[in-house]
Amino acid sequence: MSGGFDLAPWELRWTGLAVDQLHRTESVFALSNGHVGLRGSLDEGEPVGLPGSYLNGFYEAHALPYAEAGYGYPEAGQTVVNVTDGKIIRLLVEDEPLDMRYGRALEHHRALDFRTGVLSRDTLWESPTGRRVRVRTRRLVSFTQRAVAAIRYEVEPVAADDGGPRPTQLVVQSDLLANEPIESATRDPRVAAALKAPLATESYRCEGTRAVLVHRTRESGLRIAAGMDHDVDDTPGLRAEISAEADLARLTLAADIPLGGVLGLTKYIGYGWSSSRSGPALRAQVEAALAGARQTGWDGLLAEQEEFLADFWESADVEVDGDDELQQAIRLGLFHILQAGARGESRAIPGKGLTGPGYDGHAFWDTETFVLPVLTYTMPEAARDALRWRHATLPLAQERARVLAKRGAAFPWRSINGQECSAYWPAGTAAFHVSADIADAVARYHAATQDTEFDAEAGTELLVETARLWWSLGHHDPHDGFRIDGITGPDEYSAVVDNNVYTNLMAQKNFTEAIAACERNPEVARRLGVTATETDQWRVAAERMRVPYDDLLQVHQQAEGFTAHEEWDFENTPGENYPLLLNYPYFELYRRQVVKQADLVLALHLRGEVFTLEQKARDFAYYEARTVRDSSLSAGTQSVIAAECGHMDLAYAYLAEAALTDLNDLHNNVANGLHMASLAGAWQAIVAGLGGMRDHGGALTFAPRLPSALTRVAFRMCFRGSRIQVEITADQATYRLIAGDPVHTTHHGTEVVIDGEVTLGIPAPPEFPTPSAPAGREPRRRTKAGGSREMTTPTPAPQA
Amino acid sequence: MSGGFDLAPWELRWTGLAVDQLHRTESVFALSNGHVGLRGSLDEGEPVGLPGSYLNGFYEAHALPYAEAGYGYPEAGQTVVNVTDGKIIRLLVEDEPLDMRYGRALEHHRALDFRTGVLSRDTLWESPTGRRVRVRTRRLVSFTQRAVAAIRYEVEPVAADDGGPRPTQLVVQSDLLANEPIESATRDPRVAAALKAPLATESYRCEGTRAVLVHRTRESGLRIAAGMDHDVDDTPGLRAEISAEADLARLTLAADIPLGGVLGLTKYIGYGWSSSRSGPALRAQVEAALAGARQTGWDGLLAEQEEFLADFWESADVEVDGDDELQQAIRLGLFHILQAGARGESRAIPGKGLTGPGYDGHAFWDTETFVLPVLTYTMPEAARDALRWRHATLPLAQERARVLAKRGAAFPWRSINGQECSAYWPAGTAAFHVSADIADAVARYHAATQDTEFDAEAGTELLVETARLWWSLGHHDPHDGFRIDGITGPDEYSAVVDNNVYTNLMAQKNFTEAIAACERNPEVARRLGVTATETDQWRVAAERMRVPYDDLLQVHQQAEGFTAHEEWDFENTPGENYPLLLNYPYFELYRRQVVKQADLVLALHLRGEVFTLEQKARDFAYYEARTVRDSSLSAGTQSVIAAECGHMDLAYAYLAEAALTDLNDLHNNVANGLHMASLAGAWQAIVAGLGGMRDHGGALTFAPRLPSALTRVAFRMCFRGSRIQVEITADQATYRLIAGDPVHTTHHGTEVVIDGEVTLGIPAPPEFPTPSAPAGREPRRRTKAGGSREMTTPTPAPQA
Repeated sequence: MSGGFDLAPWELRWTGLAVDQLHRTESVFALSNGHVGLRGSLDEGEPVGLPGSYLNGFYEAHALPYAEAGYGYPEAGQTVVNVTDGKIIRLLVEDEPLDMRYGRALEHHRALDFRTGVLSRDTLWESPTGRRVRVRTRRLVSFTQRAVAAIRYEVEPVAADDGGPRPTQLVVQSDLLANEPIESATRDPRVAAALKAPLATESYRCEGTRAVLVHRTRESGLRIAAGMDHDVDDTPGLRAEISAEADLARLTLAADIPLGGVLGLTKYIGYGWSSSRSGPALRAQVEAALAGARQTGWDGLLAEQEEFLADFWESADVEVDGDDELQQAIRLGLFHILQAGARGESRAIPGKGLTGPGYDGHAFWDTETFVLPVLTYTMPEAARDALRWRHATLPLAQERARVLAKRGAAFPWRSINGQECSAYWPAGTAAFHVSADIADAVARYHAATQDTEFDAEAGTELLVETARLWWSLGHHDPHDGFRIDGITGPDEYSAVVDNNVYTNLMAQKNFTEAIAACERNPEVARRLGVTATETDQWRVAAERMRVPYDDLLQVHQQAEGFTAHEEWDFENTPGENYPLLLNYPYFELYRRQVVKQADLVLALHLRGEVFTLEQKARDFAYYEARTVRDSSLSAGTQSVIAAECGHMDLAYAYLAEAALTDLNDLHNNVANGLHMASLAGAWQAIVAGLGGMRDHGGALTFAPRLPSALTRVAFRMCFRGSRIQVEITADQATYRLIAGDPVHTTHHGTEVVIDGEVTLGIPAPPEFPTPSAPAGREPRRRTKAGGSREMTTPTPAPQA
Repeated sequence: MSGGFDLAPWELRWTGLAVDQLHRTESVFALSNGHVGLRGSLDEGEPVGLPGSYLNGFYEAHALPYAEAGYGYPEAGQTVVNVTDGKIIRLLVEDEPLDMRYGRALEHHRALDFRTGVLSRDTLWESPTGRRVRVRTRRLVSFTQRAVAAIRYEVEPVAADDGGPRPTQLVVQSDLLANEPIESATRDPRVAAALKAPLATESYRCEGTRAVLVHRTRESGLRIAAGMDHDVDDTPGLRAEISAEADLARLTLAADIPLGGVLGLTKYIGYGWSSSRSGPALRAQVEAALAGARQTGWDGLLAEQEEFLADFWESADVEVDGDDELQQAIRLGLFHILQAGARGESRAIPGKGLTGPGYDGHAFWDTETFVLPVLTYTMPEAARDALRWRHATLPLAQERARVLAKRGAAFPWRSINGQECSAYWPAGTAAFHVSADIADAVARYHAATQDTEFDAEAGTELLVETARLWWSLGHHDPHDGFRIDGITGPDEYSAVVDNNVYTNLMAQKNFTEAIAACERNPEVARRLGVTATETDQWRVAAERMRVPYDDLLQVHQQAEGFTAHEEWDFENTPGENYPLLLNYPYFELYRRQVVKQADLVLALHLRGEVFTLEQKARDFAYYEARTVRDSSLSAGTQSVIAAECGHMDLAYAYLAEAALTDLNDLHNNVANGLHMASLAGAWQAIVAGLGGMRDHGGALTFAPRLPSALTRVAFRMCFRGSRIQVEITADQATYRLIAGDPVHTTHHGTEVVIDGEVTLGIPAPPEFPTPSAPAGREPRRRTKAGGSREMTTPTPAPQA
């Protein structure tokens, strides 16, 4: 078991109901293709944790209140909307509604299959009056028909102990339901404010087995058409009826089904949404999608789904021998990253994907820094599409830069449509590194794909406009080079600092990548008005970039002066006071040496080429002792650098923490959606940690090494059109070319050409003193035999 | 003329109506005794800029909204309430309401007399139908009967060109009006949010010529009783009627008055308010106050008022020869400071006094740092009472410190009742210096008065609890001594910085003063649990206090790293972009070398003993070039240090700016109330600037010197029970003992005992290069002949 789920390499299964766990199982069982997302709620709608059907980019706007406003504060917020729910299929058994809270569930399990992309539900239910039915549903959100979801629904009367031969009267109601009631938001700023009845009716229509409801949001003015259609199995005596009203459409099927008979149907759900298209146009689009889906049929959709996934796993699978729980968690993570990014297609990849309303459905820097590396090396076209979204929002980012008295493009800290929605600027707008993170993702994508079309159409412009931002944010100072002052780095327990090492080094890379892109695309550079003077300025700024270092302590300073700040009193901080931000004011956090999440350590990873191994080991140890991991964005990065410094068991512990963040609900908020960046962090911990993969300067290199508990790890990657597999055991690594041209790389510094298969020995790890985390915040160490059975369940932090 | 007012040494007069100027004349003509405040609106209620009757400490509470809340954010705000208006006396002339917007004002002027404390109004009005009346009113808020205001009202029919012998029918309505409609607030965060109908009726009653209304605020639950009573002159045929309803009480007087006859009355207004006393108790209190006032009578109140003011001017007057405008402005300022502080009596002195709803009626550090020095040396018992208010709020400040994970007492950045109301913590809660400013005011008051009773009862505890705050805010660091990180200094264009010089030096003084107080009051120290270990800690912290200095530029850094920040591009900042905070985001202001108001320069003043004169001159020049004076808290301090550095004409310019801030509405917001701290800053510019007065270590010293434009300046002060006068001319200074024991001081470093009269020569000023302000932000230089006639009217900044 892992977090209550059964262990299995290719699926995630939950047995039993557990009403109090519905919130989180709905998140973990969410289906999505990056375009449409459906939380894994029960078909019959109730009991439910948090209903949720999400469309990428579909949000409601609301005013952001300020008791003391300031110039440039965003005035409007955006919140993802729970749209018209098409998942609901209710059942009445002899006039008794199927509700799992009543009667008895003799059997009940749900399972998510990573190879079919199908969420299944199998229930043997006995009604309070003793009638038994077996309900079997299969649900998918199509990777190939991106506007479409489908549900295969079968219900079969089963003989009860007192069951007679009489047929059972079954009534099935298949609904489209708008403005579902949802629970109110908590005071936790990280939990999305729930919006009540956000959809205003525009039209509703039904005919035959099909219905379409068209609504529009009140403030953001986005229009949505939601439709359903059905294939009902031939059923003698079946009575069907369809109806539609403002917020509800319903197909009602009634039949008397004998023992052994089955009432079966396939429900197709289609969505269309737009800020500009008319209601009739959207309705037509949805009806066309439904017609296409019916034409493909359930079996066809299923076959397409399996084929799509087979291709994905072919290029992306990660195998972990020696830790079944980790194996399952890693695949689940990859599956959800795929779901978040597969068909976003020039829309954002939110921090929670489309699995829940957490963070208001906003996208953050997490996407570029954690999620896109995974997609870049497993499904590069999805990474490209996500970056195209950023490119599409460039005018908004340019406008934002102007409001902030800056040049170039200042991308938002949090947003759905590209406009800044952060209401607390020290931890939002000031975190300008998001723009460098986008530039980094562009450069990585370019190096890994050599996609010259994207480079010319979007990549170069993104690099140039972000470089311009940095040039206007920094200045040359006689004291100490090119400084970038008054900004906020990744660590959210610091804010508005000078010369944050991570930010400065990412800005440095932004400059050099922009110069390189302009050299590759001189026409584009000319069009953008880039002059030789400007690129010279970038070059000099990059050369003179300030990187603060503490000579006394012999470590880098996360930002200017950080290492002189007061230490946090970890010994006297009780466990229930974590996450600290819920129990201490920002002012107290900002002024002390307490780190929420990898910041300097993230620089050690992403800009590792500018640090020596000795520096990394010292810096890592220093920050390890001060990092509390109140963020899910930390463990994966700590794992990567722990591995590089030879702390393999620590790397393993952090890898497991990242991978299990959601399965074990370590931050107590999976209810609101999965932590995509943490799932991606687990992949990073495997590939960049255990695999030692780096892509500095666009070159792919490896330095694999395993913790003692794992006997074998193998992962696959795409690189410049080729597919490779890296297989690691205790003392050697094997590189295999799966498809495409030979790949040039290095293995622990030795040049290797992957062409066919090559096996190399793994050198002994470097030996540095083992660092320690703050008292009470150590990662849970996994036992040598791996797997969860010897491991006690981690105590979840109260919130994060 | 000065800002539209007639020049005169002892009064301020405005001739004509100028409806568009009513807002600001109401503020400048406001009457107050620190307990009750009435804006200078016309008796008849309309036209009006902003109606306002304020009671010290009477506020309404309201939720503070946050789009993204954080731990420790204050949840409730407080806003001063416009209470029941007792000023209104309406007049109907032959059924025609006196409204200055209609008919013709043949004569009309209002005047505030600094020696009687009376606001007079003299109007000769012709109604639209040609009837003429002379209206003569005198208004005072009693300094001696603190719950009482009084109005002497006389109206006299005057022959018009077409006036016949027929008597004129006059109807006078004397009102008590609750929940007056007031204009809505602007988006400017500095303008108080207007509250609509904040008073809920509890009871109303009238009898004879007296009426009392009792109300209660809805949220804060404060109760107010407002009453009026009248002495009506014997008038043949007078018909009187009184009535009361929920929000209105009215005495109506009707009489036919012949030419040359006068309808006269005296209106007494009384207020009582409390968070705990009952309605009947408050009503009784108000009725007693009214009875007392009637017993004293108008002439008696007037005589008391004149006596009180004569005593004040005896100890506080400032004479300025050579600049009539400045002479008037300085006296106006002293008068308003007196009004703000005279009878506050353990309530706060708000930033605007009781002259308007600006800053929501909150008190800030301004009071201790700028206003209390004036009161300490002119009316020390008022300074004592203001500090007793702080002492009364100590439990709230201790609780606030605990919420902030600190020890001791953290006084609020802004408040009415002592609870923190600042909704933007980087510029509020983080500005911990307010607690050191309070400690500084306590120490100054003690040194200037030797008030051992206050020292034992309140002063020592205030010093100890604030010292404890600093001990918990700072830490010893191996890099560089005792640091205080992550706080905000006075300059509001920086925030959340390390080792702000002003803050650190004030904390240093806080430590040493706390130690001294404990030594003076060992019993109190024991009661407070102060141990030798604790005072040793304070001593070592004070000794090792970090004061950042830039070795390259040879100047102090306002805070760690300040001098390495990017310079502001003043050349390319258009004038309409000031104040910068309304046109640039905080992030851009915080990260650059742009200073809103004296910060390091304030340290040069208040902790001048730890700087050399050369350091002061260099520091002053450096910060002068970067200070934009978007705050009214700056010019006075710049004047003081300019004078010390020998820049006498610059000192004079800043003195005039501080003194004329409100008269000339330099920040375009006098409508919302006067800037008490700026008025106090003008006094500082005279006494500490031209007089060179310092009180470091409790010793009183002088170093007088005049700018060439002024021929003579004389000021009076109280010190340890004595009263002295310092008279300065171009080449010599005369010190006179007016009352009390001889006073020991120094004159430009030479020891002097003031006993009788002593005259000493003034040495030549030091010669440092003249510093310059940012382009476009230079103070307006006053011409040599002084006075305003040669001076063009300053262009007001758009807002501040």
